[in-house]
Parts: sequence; structure tokens; C-alpha cells
Amino acid sequence: MILDRIQKPNDIKNIKPEEYEELAREIRRFLVDKVSKTGGHLASNLGAVELTMALHICLDLPKDKIVWDVGHQSYVHKILTGRKDAFDTLRQYRGLSGFPKRRESEYDTFNTGHSSTSISAALGLVVSDELNNGNDSTVVAVIGDGAMTGGLAQEAINNASKLKRNFIIILNDNNMSISRNVGGLSTYLSNARAGETYIELKSGVQRTLEKIPGAGEKIVRSIKRTKHSIKQLLVPGMLFENMGITYLGPVDGHNTTALIRIIQEAKNIDHAVLIHVCTKKGKGYGPAMENPSLFHGIGPFNPRTGLPNNMNAPQSYTDVFAEAICREAGKNDKIVAITAAMEDGTGLAKFQEKFPKRFFDVGIAESHATTFAAGLAVGGLKPFVAIYSSFLQRAFDQILHDVCIQSLPVVFCVDRAGLVGNDGETHQGTFDISYLSIIPNMNVLVPKNAWELDAAITFAATFPAPLAIRYPRGKAYTGLSEFREPICFGKSEIIYKERDIAILAVGSMVESAVKIRDEFKQKGKNVSLVNARFVKPLDEEMLDQLAQTHSVIITMEENVINGGYGMAVLRYYNTRHTNVKVINFAVPNSYVEQGSRDDQLKECGLDLESILKRLETELI
Amino acid sequence: MILDRIQKPNDIKNIKPEEYEELAREIRRFLVDKVSKTGGHLASNLGAVELTMALHICLDLPKDKIVWDVGHQSYVHKILTGRKDAFDTLRQYRGLSGFPKRRESEYDTFNTGHSSTSISAALGLVVSDELNNGNDSTVVAVIGDGAMTGGLAQEAINNASKLKRNFIIILNDNNMSISRNVGGLSTYLSNARAGETYIELKSGVQRTLEKIPGAGEKIVRSIKRTKHSIKQLLVPGMLFENMGITYLGPVDGHNTTALIRIIQEAKNIDHAVLIHVCTKKGKGYGPAMENPSLFHGIGPFNPRTGLPNNMNAPQSYTDVFAEAICREAGKNDKIVAITAAMEDGTGLAKFQEKFPKRFFDVGIAESHATTFAAGLAVGGLKPFVAIYSSFLQRAFDQILHDVCIQSLPVVFCVDRAGLVGNDGETHQGTFDISYLSIIPNMNVLVPKNAWELDAAITFAATFPAPLAIRYPRGKAYTGLSEFREPICFGKSEIIYKERDIAILAVGSMVESAVKIRDEFKQKGKNVSLVNARFVKPLDEEMLDQLAQTHSVIITMEENVINGGYGMAVLRYYNTRHTNVKVINFAVPNSYVEQGSRDDQLKECGLDLESILKRLETELI
Repeated sequence: MILDRIQKPNDIKNIKPEEYEELAREIRRFLVDKVSKTGGHLASNLGAVELTMALHICLDLPKDKIVWDVGHQSYVHKILTGRKDAFDTLRQYRGLSGFPKRRESEYDTFNTGHSSTSISAALGLVVSDELNNGNDSTVVAVIGDGAMTGGLAQEAINNASKLKRNFIIILNDNNMSISRNVGGLSTYLSNARAGETYIELKSGVQRTLEKIPGAGEKIVRSIKRTKHSIKQLLVPGMLFENMGITYLGPVDGHNTTALIRIIQEAKNIDHAVLIHVCTKKGKGYGPAMENPSLFHGIGPFNPRTGLPNNMNAPQSYTDVFAEAICREAGKNDKIVAITAAMEDGTGLAKFQEKFPKRFFDVGIAESHATTFAAGLAVGGLKPFVAIYSSFLQRAFDQILHDVCIQSLPVVFCVDRAGLVGNDGETHQGTFDISYLSIIPNMNVLVPKNAWELDAAITFAATFPAPLAIRYPRGKAYTGLSEFREPICFGKSEIIYKERDIAILAVGSMVESAVKIRDEFKQKGKNVSLVNARFVKPLDEEMLDQLAQTHSVIITMEENVINGGYGMAVLRYYNTRHTNVKVINFAVPNSYVEQGSRDDQLKECGLDLESILKRLETELI
Repeated sequence: MILDRIQKPNDIKNIKPEEYEELAREIRRFLVDKVSKTGGHLASNLGAVELTMALHICLDLPKDKIVWDVGHQSYVHKILTGRKDAFDTLRQYRGLSGFPKRRESEYDTFNTGHSSTSISAALGLVVSDELNNGNDSTVVAVIGDGAMTGGLAQEAINNASKLKRNFIIILNDNNMSISRNVGGLSTYLSNARAGETYIELKSGVQRTLEKIPGAGEKIVRSIKRTKHSIKQLLVPGMLFENMGITYLGPVDGHNTTALIRIIQEAKNIDHAVLIHVCTKKGKGYGPAMENPSLFHGIGPFNPRTGLPNNMNAPQSYTDVFAEAICREAGKNDKIVAITAAMEDGTGLAKFQEKFPKRFFDVGIAESHATTFAAGLAVGGLKPFVAIYSSFLQRAFDQILHDVCIQSLPVVFCVDRAGLVGNDGETHQGTFDISYLSIIPNMNVLVPKNAWELDAAITFAATFPAPLAIRYPRGKAYTGLSEFREPICFGKSEIIYKERDIAILAVGSMVESAVKIRDEFKQKGKNVSLVNARFVKPLDEEMLDQLAQTHSVIITMEENVINGGYGMAVLRYYNTRHTNVKVINFAVPNSYVEQGSRDDQLKECGLDLESILKRLETELI
């Protein structure tokens, strides 16, 4: 195997050009084999094999720097930098990260996870190199066409154009973000992809023009006077050239030799240059090519058939949301739905099918999604914005400034709230209760189980003010199905009403609270259990009532302690000078690394054992 | 006066074309007269007189909709919609807002304040009109060239290009954001501004080409085959045309008749169209034209001379920051400074002059500023990012995801923290302690006075982790100048050490706390006073010590109660089961409207009288 000769960084430089194709094949087999066992991001890595090889051949790493946008396409980079043997631990607790991590390798220049950051971060590296070392290294940002629709990338492009030294942006264009791409940029890039003919025209036209005696020269001169030379006018990269960034390509992203040639050419340009590389997501693996969206991020699967090991996945919260929103939209034609390039992930694909005119995929653009929703609400529609908890962080100001000052009836469906598992610290949904609770006029509802999420969507459909509904990744809890207290604004649901000790649990923690309560009951203690449901506003009436018959109030939430539900409860009791002891369970104020949700709960002291142990001490 | 005939909305439609010039002159005199008394945003409004007139003449308001980006240029719109007589109360408590406000008038379609939101919001209105009314109204977004550099605007442009109905974007290009503009887009627009010759070429070239027998027609055909017709290739709006948005202009923004003609043309286009309007910031008022940055937002001034009434402004916190950062940068050449189009507002203009290579104005792009700073820090530089509290909300995810996960030594200089006065709810800096305290690895330092801000900058220069320093708008407090406990990480400063009652005050509230303490002392009570200084991490040792000799702990901060410093103190004592009574003073969880800072403190219960009154009740 050629791959066996790749043991440490830069070993690829010893591979002969005629071996490139075979090496790429071996890497793809390696990826399919490993990811089929651990799960992970497969399709994007299969698409980036030759591009990564070419970069490692052309660059002098780690002096030169590559910043991988999003970073889930960095597996091949990890293989080529001495981490091949760690792939059995990919995305596992304490194992190899699925994203670039500076603490993992000096070849990982900048940690990524969220989209559209690479050009900004790489520009920082470019400027540092300029000021510290006098332009000693080549810096490359690798960004997908989906990520390019993010405002952050556009802000960075605008700034990159000012550079007076080399900086290479590689546009890895697979004509997809996570599902398919949208918008003007996408259309533009498609035209550019198909645009080889322009390049022929470019010199062709000028030659033809010049041949015409008299008039021809005059035309050429007058066109050149426009400052945009005819070359720039007819090459496919006008959009970038207009911004002052040289455009090279498009180039076949699965031809290593062609890629090497164009990267070397780019290294010689004394300002920012964009290489348009066309790749195929899932390349070389049939099932992934046929269904790149499924193979974007996938659990363990059978490499021969491409079928997931876990074929009968139980109903997820996303499924519950998807059904409920379609039902409500059927009843109310003012309901519209918005996703930021996540129609599959958020479950809105069904909605799109049923109500195509009322569905909006805005691209990877959470800020726009939110302000757009504010406009829709002012216009009398009822927008549901479905965005993962961690990505909604990108719309913090738009929620605060555009939705909540005007108290507009926008519904945020905050999926992947709480601990998310294998994606790790960049993707944790452990901040939303806090950042949403800061915002005046915002209301936050957290259902305990599948039934309640469904009921929450119905409630949201007629709610006249900003509302966020947060729910976790994965399987929907179906326990406590007999508790169906109708949703009433600002009211909690009392599940068991006893005395002495009360547990106030938020969303996912209600399931845990039932178990904690069982343990206490076995010891003969009286324990009330409340499903907090609304974490903002607080159910003050319920808190007052509890205080009359309880001396200990325990709060439990899968969110950071700072600014969370527990703090709000503590503050309320403090303001009322109520003499109850409040014990808060929450995620500590730290980033939680990759692993299973169980690993992560344990690390946060939120597993059953840790909670019971701490309560033993506290309740003495 | 012609202006006297403008009493209610749409009255302008009765003004004769030959009167437009005189009306514009009268409006400008009115603006200068009124704003010279109240203060306000002058230069941008002077620049938008004819544009606003033309819009009101062409549109059927309020059925048609105008969304004003940022909104500080909406004064003329307010004059033309029946609010002329309210200008004496402009930006005063309970008076006319300096920004569009839906509750003020049905002609204000969407509340704005922060930059770059208009296209997103207007797209929402467009889609609502389409779904609700079957395309009954014309929707216009008016956005400056500065605001166009914001990522949110770029995300919206990408989405606007998909529209299949009319939508008008007016690019009000004065070649400035608040100071001067930067980046590729700016260069591009400058070229377009100078580009009238292109339009002549457009038809000229084609005619000439066609005249050439044989070859000519062939060329025209082959150029047309490129799908970008020769028209599109040679007009100045290629950047937008490439995105699928029709470009009209550039047009003289001070010629009402020309503006009317082009707006009417735009109304007939069946998809998104951008009109490039060239205006002069401060137009028609000499002092404002000479110094548009000074007249962007100005206090009361002498309309004859253009000189501010308050010529000897006392040293502001911004001034203190500006001096300190220059001094530190002189000692350490790794220090670099970043602003998002606010070199004057943040005080970095001095830094730019002294260290031009180490200064970066990234445009109105707070997200990029932050991720760029993260890259600079990885590259070994020491970035100081100076952004107003309210605008830094736009970088929440970038602080959390790009700076703090990697714990990079970026310093955020958070100006205009706390209550900001006349700009009102959109600009309040009352959330930063909360949103920064949520973020793991972030540290937050709040100086009490001028000396301490200076010392904080020195401290920051060598601090090896993320740090935010927050300080208020306006005059730097110079009291307590004898208290100069050196800054030590995570430590508070004890100002008066007594017993029984302790006040823990944050930043601006230390000054108030001194007065509260004086009142208590007069009543013979013992009161300690602590300058919290670090609100994150908490000084737990100090809290433990206080608890030994104090029974009441009072916290005071100019930040919302949810997730603020007071909550952190309360939580700490609760965790330690310490038997102290904690009383929190903070901004309530609501938006605080325009007025003087004193008005706002009163509204928040943070003025001296309110605090004393509440304490009387609580301390019985």
C-alpha cells in the first residue's frame, strides 16, 4: 500500500506523481472503512482527498498554514499529518477530534467548527506573518461554496482584497452546503463552473477584435479604458475580480496534478487570490455520491451497502417538530418556515415538500434568517425559524435588536439544545437558555417529552410575542406520557406534588429527575417534581406555592450555570426573602469536549450518580 | 415657505417640480436649526434630503414600505410624515426618536438602529406582501455603502437575488461609513461612481461591433453566448448583476427629478433592483461637508459657526483608552488595534496615525473583526478590538467559538457600556456583562475611573487569555483618585473596609456607591465599599472575607439583572451556604428608551433616590 508510506507529516512529498491516483483511492478506502465504524463526516472528506494531497505537496507545513473552514473536511489532512492510527478513536471521548484542534497537532493551525470563519482567521495569520516575519509563509483558507454564503466570509473577502501580499483562498465548490445551495452566489458559481468557454473567448475576442483594421484597435482601446480589462470582463471570476481578488480556475478538484499546478501559480501572486476548485461530495463511494446529504454526518454504517447500522432509529425530537409544524401549517396559511441550509437536519424537508412557497432556505446565514423573520412578522406572517442551538449564537444581536425590541411573534425552534455528543465543544447547545434569557421580551419554553414538543408547536402557532422552544438532539423521550397539562403561558407543570423537597427540572432533565426522585422515594423522602416548561418568564406563582411547603428546591438543566434557569429561580427566592435552600445542577461554565452524551453528562456532574452524590452531601 | 405646505404624509406630492430645489434648501435649514439645539445625526440627513423627497413622491405610503438601514438618516422622512413639529423633542426623554419607530408612526415600517439589517427586513416585507396580498406594494430598502460591507447585508443580497417580483434596494453611496470606507467593495463602488463613461460604451461598443461586416456580428454573437450580455459586461453594476440583481445608476443623489425618474424605472423591474445613488454627506451645510465625521452624531452646536456649544469637553473614557493604547503599543510592537468603522468613536484614530501598519479598520463587520483578531492572536500578535457594547453583540458567536474555545489573548475594549442616553434602546450597552459572563474562558474587567481604565489597558497588554474591559460613554470619572490598588487578576479593590453592610459596585456604579455610603454614614451605619473590578472571574476570597464581618451585601451594576455580576455574587454565597443577605441593583430585564443618562438611571431604579428608597425598605 502506498498509504503505508505516509507515516509522518510531509511524507507525501516522496510519493511519485504516477502514484497519486492510487493513493487517493487508498485514502478513500481508509476513510470509508474507519468512518463506517465510528461515524463521522464522510462525504465532504471523500470530496477533498486530492485537494488535501495537493496542498500538502505544494506547501511547507507547518511553516505554511492551512485553515479549514468548518473543519469537518480535515480528516485527510489528519491522515497526512501522522494521525492515521488514531482514526479508531475518531469523535470518541478523549479520542481524535472530528475537527482541527491546535492542541492535537501543530499542523492544525486554527480550531474550527462553525461555518465561514476561515478567511477571517487566515487573514489574521497573514497579517501576523507580515508583521512578525516579513512575509515568510504561505497561508491558505479552504472554504466551501456553502460557507461562502455566510456574512462573515463576505466581510472577510471585502477585507482580503486590501492585502498587498500573497493569500490563497480555495473555494471548494461542490455545489452544496449541507443540503443544496441557494441564492445569487450559488447561481453565479454554477455559471462559473460551466464557464471554461469564457476563457477561450477571453483571448479569442481580443485577437479577433485586434485583427479588424482601424475600428478593431479603437474598440480594444476603448474597452481597456474602462479599467476593467477585457480579460477581467470575460473570465468567470468577475465577481471576485471586481472585489480586487484574482480568480484562478475553475479546476477539476479530483486531478491532483492540475491542482498542484494551479496552487503553485497562486503562490506567485502578490495579493489575494481565489482558486475555484470543483469537487464532488462523496466522490469515489457510490452510496455517498448518491446521497451526499445523508453521508454529510453519519453514524456507523455497513461499508458494503452504505446502510446505517441503526436502521430503525427511534423518533427524534426533530421528527416530532417536523410533523407538528406541517400539521399547524396546514391549518394556518400564515405560517412560514426558515432554515439556514439545514432542511434535513432541522426536519424542515417535509415542510418544504408540502408548502414550497412558504419555505425559505437562506443559506448558511443565521443572522439574515432572523432579521428576515422579523420582517415577515411585521408583514403579518408567522415565521418559525429552525436553527441548532450552537448556530443560533450567530443571531444573538438580530434576536435582541430586530425581533425582541419590536416584540415580534417569531418562533425559534432551537434544535440540538444541551449536550450534543461527538461533535464536541464547538457544537454544544449549552448556552441558549442563558443568552436567550438575557434578552427582554424573549420567552423560552422547554418541553419535557415528545408529546410536549408537539403541544409547544401548537402553542407557538398563535403566540403573539417572541418565543424560543429548545429541544435536544436525538431520541425523543416518551416517558411521563400521562402528564399532559395543557400549555399555558408562563406556567410550569407540576408532575408530583408532595412536600419538603422539590425538583424543578428543565426539558431533558425531567427524565433524570424522575430517577432521582425514585431514589429519594425509596429512602422514604417526600419529593415534588415540577417540569419547569417555561424558563422565561418564571412561574412565580408556582415558586411561591412551593416555598410554603418545601424547604429544599433543586433545579436541573442541561445549560451552563451562568445566567441559566437555576439562577433565575435563586434570584426570585432571594428577592422574596423566602427561606428555602436552592441547589442548582447545571453545566459548569466550561467547554465540554466530544464524547457520548453520557460521557459528557458525567463530566458535567449531571449523571445520576454524580447528582445523588452531591445531594447526599448537600442535604445532610 | 414651501415647507409650511408639508403638514401631513404625502403632502409633498402637491409640490411642483420647479419647487423641489427650494424645498430641499428649506428642509436643510430646518435640520441645521433643530439639530443645532437638540444634537443628533446631522450629516447623513443632510445627504439624504432629495432621496427622501423623491421616494415620498414616487411611493404610495404607507401601503408601500421604506426600510431605513441604521435609521439615523430618517429625519427627513419624519419631516415629510407629519412629525415636523416634534423636532424640538428630538432624542429627548419621551420625545421624537432619532430612529424609525413603529410605535411612533405607521410610516415607520421597521425599527432600526444597528447597521446592515434593512435588506433582510425588507425581504421579509416583500415575501409577506407576496403571500398575503399578491404583490400589492413596493418595498424599498435604503442602505449606505458602509452598511453594505456588513455580512448581514451580504447574506441578504444573496437571498434577494432569488426574488421573482420587484424589490428596490437603494444604495446611498456617500463613500463613507461613519468615518471613511474600506475594502474591496468600497474600491469597486468608487470605480462605479466614476463610471458614467461605461454607459456610453455599453451601446457604443455594440453599435461599432455590429457595423463591422462579417466579423462584427460574429463577435457580438459570441459575446452574447457568454450569457452575460455585453450590456451587463460594460455597465458599472457588474458586481450586483453577477448576483442576479439589476443595477441602475449611478445617479446624482441631489437631483430630485433624476431620482424620481430612476425610481419609477426601478418600480417596473420584476425582480430585485439596486439603484446606486451618489450623495454627499453633510450636503448644503459647510461645516458638515468639511467634517462629516464630526457631524455624523453631534451635540448641540452653533449653527452659524458649526462649533459645538460644549467646546471644552472633559476627558472621556474613550480619550483615556486612546492614550493608554498608544503608550502600550509604543512599548510593545506586537500590539495591534482593530475597529469596525469607528476609528473616531473608539478613539483609535490616534493609534492609526502613530502605528498605521498595526491598525485595522475592517468596515462595519464586528464578526470579522473578532475572528480576524483570533487569527492575529494565534499568529503571535496582541490584538485589541475596540467595539461599542451594543455592536459587540454581533460578535457573540465569534467571541465564544473563535476566541474563547482556544482561550486566545484577544482584548475587547467595550466602549459605551451601560446606559448610553439619547440613542435609546437599540444602542444600550446594558447586556455585555451578561453575554460575556456566559462564555467560558472569558474574563471581564470593569474599571471604576480614568486611572483604572488606563491601568487596565496596561494590565491587558500582557494578559495571556481573553479579556474584556468595559467602560461607559462620556466623561471619565476622576474621583477616588487616591485609590490605586494595582490590578491583579481576578481581584477586587477594597476601598473602605468596615463591617455590617458592604457595597460591591461595578464600574460606573462605584461613583454612585460612594454617595450611597455617605448617606448611610450620616446615619451612623458601617459600610464597606468594594470596587468589584473583575466581574469574571469572581473574587471569591474577597467574598468569603466580607461574609465574616458583614450581614448585608449590596451589588450595583449598570447591566441587566439576568446573568449579571449580582447574580454571580448571589450564586457564590448560595453555593457556600453563607448566611448573608444579598441585595442586587441592576438594570431590569427590559429595553431602556432614549433620554439623558439621568432619566434612564431613574427609570431603572438606579438613581440615588431610588436606591436609597429601596434600601430603606429592604434593610428594615
